[in-house]
Amino acid sequence: MNVIDVIRTKRDGGPLTDDQIDWVIDAYTKGVVADEQMSALAMAILLRGMTGAEIARWTAAMIASGERLDLSTVDRPTVDKHSTGGVGDKITLPLTPLVAACGAAVPQLSGRGLGHTGGTLDKLESIPGFRTKLSNDEFVRQLQTVGAAICAAGEGLAPADRKLYALRDVTGTVEAIPLIASSIMSKKIAEGTAALVLDVKFGSGAFMKKIEDARELARTMVDLGKAHGVVTRALLTDMNTPLGLAAGHSIEVEESLEVLAGGGPADVVELTLALAREMLAAAGIDGVDPADALRDGRAMDAWRELITAQGGDPSAKLPQAPETEVVRADRDGYVTTLDAYGIGVAAWRLGAGRARKEDPVSASAGVMLRKKQGDAVRAGDVLMELRADEAGRIPSALEVAASAVTISDTAPDASPLVLERLD
Amino acid sequence: MNVIDVIRTKRDGGPLTDDQIDWVIDAYTKGVVADEQMSALAMAILLRGMTGAEIARWTAAMIASGERLDLSTVDRPTVDKHSTGGVGDKITLPLTPLVAACGAAVPQLSGRGLGHTGGTLDKLESIPGFRTKLSNDEFVRQLQTVGAAICAAGEGLAPADRKLYALRDVTGTVEAIPLIASSIMSKKIAEGTAALVLDVKFGSGAFMKKIEDARELARTMVDLGKAHGVVTRALLTDMNTPLGLAAGHSIEVEESLEVLAGGGPADVVELTLALAREMLAAAGIDGVDPADALRDGRAMDAWRELITAQGGDPSAKLPQAPETEVVRADRDGYVTTLDAYGIGVAAWRLGAGRARKEDPVSASAGVMLRKKQGDAVRAGDVLMELRADEAGRIPSALEVAASAVTISDTAPDASPLVLERLD
Repeated sequence: MNVIDVIRTKRDGGPLTDDQIDWVIDAYTKGVVADEQMSALAMAILLRGMTGAEIARWTAAMIASGERLDLSTVDRPTVDKHSTGGVGDKITLPLTPLVAACGAAVPQLSGRGLGHTGGTLDKLESIPGFRTKLSNDEFVRQLQTVGAAICAAGEGLAPADRKLYALRDVTGTVEAIPLIASSIMSKKIAEGTAALVLDVKFGSGAFMKKIEDARELARTMVDLGKAHGVVTRALLTDMNTPLGLAAGHSIEVEESLEVLAGGGPADVVELTLALAREMLAAAGIDGVDPADALRDGRAMDAWRELITAQGGDPSAKLPQAPETEVVRADRDGYVTTLDAYGIGVAAWRLGAGRARKEDPVSASAGVMLRKKQGDAVRAGDVLMELRADEAGRIPSALEVAASAVTISDTAPDASPLVLERLD
Repeated sequence: MNVIDVIRTKRDGGPLTDDQIDWVIDAYTKGVVADEQMSALAMAILLRGMTGAEIARWTAAMIASGERLDLSTVDRPTVDKHSTGGVGDKITLPLTPLVAACGAAVPQLSGRGLGHTGGTLDKLESIPGFRTKLSNDEFVRQLQTVGAAICAAGEGLAPADRKLYALRDVTGTVEAIPLIASSIMSKKIAEGTAALVLDVKFGSGAFMKKIEDARELARTMVDLGKAHGVVTRALLTDMNTPLGLAAGHSIEVEESLEVLAGGGPADVVELTLALAREMLAAAGIDGVDPADALRDGRAMDAWRELITAQGGDPSAKLPQAPETEVVRADRDGYVTTLDAYGIGVAAWRLGAGRARKEDPVSASAGVMLRKKQGDAVRAGDVLMELRADEAGRIPSALEVAASAVTISDTAPDASPLVLERLD
């Protein structure tokens, strides 16, 4: 087998054979195929596409590059959730303990933020003491005892994907549906969950700008999951405006605690409950309303148990940013646009995001919205508050945050948060 | 400037700006842009194409990555030739001394063979003592004294191209017209020639299989040359069947000597004279017929002077391969196909070619044709002779050589060698 022949096959628009896919993934994992060869192949895949059969084989080869966790010792039904990422998307934080409180086990392997989107692990690390790294044994044991774990994927899980993801990130080949789908699904399938609910986002703050692309990605992932025996469903959700009011790390944890306490912004509650219901149904748990578990404190109890199990102090005070600045409305009217991408970039510039994977993030930097899209405002009202560790970060964030807002005379039409469901 | 933005721009089909091109070539030469990033960009260029303006800027940036030779101290008009490569293409060997004998100076920077095509430097190195490496000073001095030099490009010339060429070779990104054109022309322009004639080949033995692609490449290169003040013309020539009878190294030198002695295969003589006439016209030399210089021995004198100047012994016996095998006709008829690619692969397998740039080649291995496309044959006639240093190389070469020949009842239509001319 020759890597140049494999690259040429895809470059010229042909499908890769099963043997070519198995060989190239294995050879890349072992370092026989070099980074510069895989990046050329990734670009060819991005521009030429892959058939469903190719994507399935590619995913299987990535799973086969490492170990597959065995969750059969966990008594409760296992169900996980994956979001394709957005601005203010802290849903994993209230959702995971909520679903655990309703009787499922949630094996939640999460990631870090990159670019303008936040990552669940970065958010949890704003809690003093919290450990995002668990051994496979600790992970499985915590699923048995607490019913939930939120941690980084172990190094043994789909190592081909780990290597390929890092490569795609620096070579402009992230936005390929076959590669996104196989990357997400290889990790989720290898983690051993029996069921999976996907939150596939579209809009300015998502990787997929158009609902058509999100639908194609969702369809691809649902089919991949089912082909590997995982009960898989997807919701297509709107990410044109941030979820909730907070976009950052510690401030998103605080907002999640409000939700777990039975309050919190309506859109965060709505999406948390919609995903919880899908997860419980996918896990085969009937007759439990997750809204009850938010109301009666069981979800909050599960949260405290989860945080404690991973070394965190659920009662600790969270870090607060010393430098703040506000953005005010320059006229009366309605907030007709509050652009997720602009707010995400502002939070990034304030210190919440990273330019490279190895960069540290600020735990307390970010944007706190005081108004949401659709709200009526008067000139001079505070629209949002910017928070940073260093004052020097504020001006460039202020610029992009201010231009993310449009105020007009008439209220915008309300748009639904959950647009479609696929199974 | 961010390399991922540059890659994305081309990936999404947009033109690169002048600043993006200048930056990415410079950063790649310096190692700031990594191989895996450049290979992703090369694949995007291959699949998305480049505008004429982009190709011109890319070429200029590659020239600017190194030094540009000054040939103004050479009294005679300078004119060079470049062939895009084929099987049995030894034309540079008789052509360079012939054009020098007619009054021009020929600054011929040549390459080595890769894949199924031969390289001029490999052929010349079959002459005992011949040096293919000259310093810039030696190169310019020899153009003044002998009127011709055939050597490897110095390391200072278009270093960005050197690095990019090696990368394309291992990443399936060789066959991109913008990259081929800019690679060839950056070196030719940097070498300082005032005029240039391109032999752009199409057919089974060429990199461009279709005449349409060869025409596009020729047009692109002629425009690039003119934009940089180099008088540039191109001939589109047929490479579906080998040029001449010999495909190898020492055996091609021997065939070239026949041409310089006034004999040799008709197709080699025809193409040598066609290119010589173009070169002399491009150099502004009128009233000289190169056919005279072949007949009266002046071209042969110039050859001996050129070989001697570069340390070679023009009277030395050339290496002969110890192992031979013949392919015979299995029926009476006419040779209707004698496929250049098949013969090239056979010569390669016999030891004339290399799989990697650092591999050595056999000086005497190759294929000697005894019949040409269109010839009448009888069953049992020798069609060709295979030559190798080791007998073990013959079987796999025999297989591909035999299947390169088709014998039929009726003679094929004669097809012209030179199809079109562009200026």
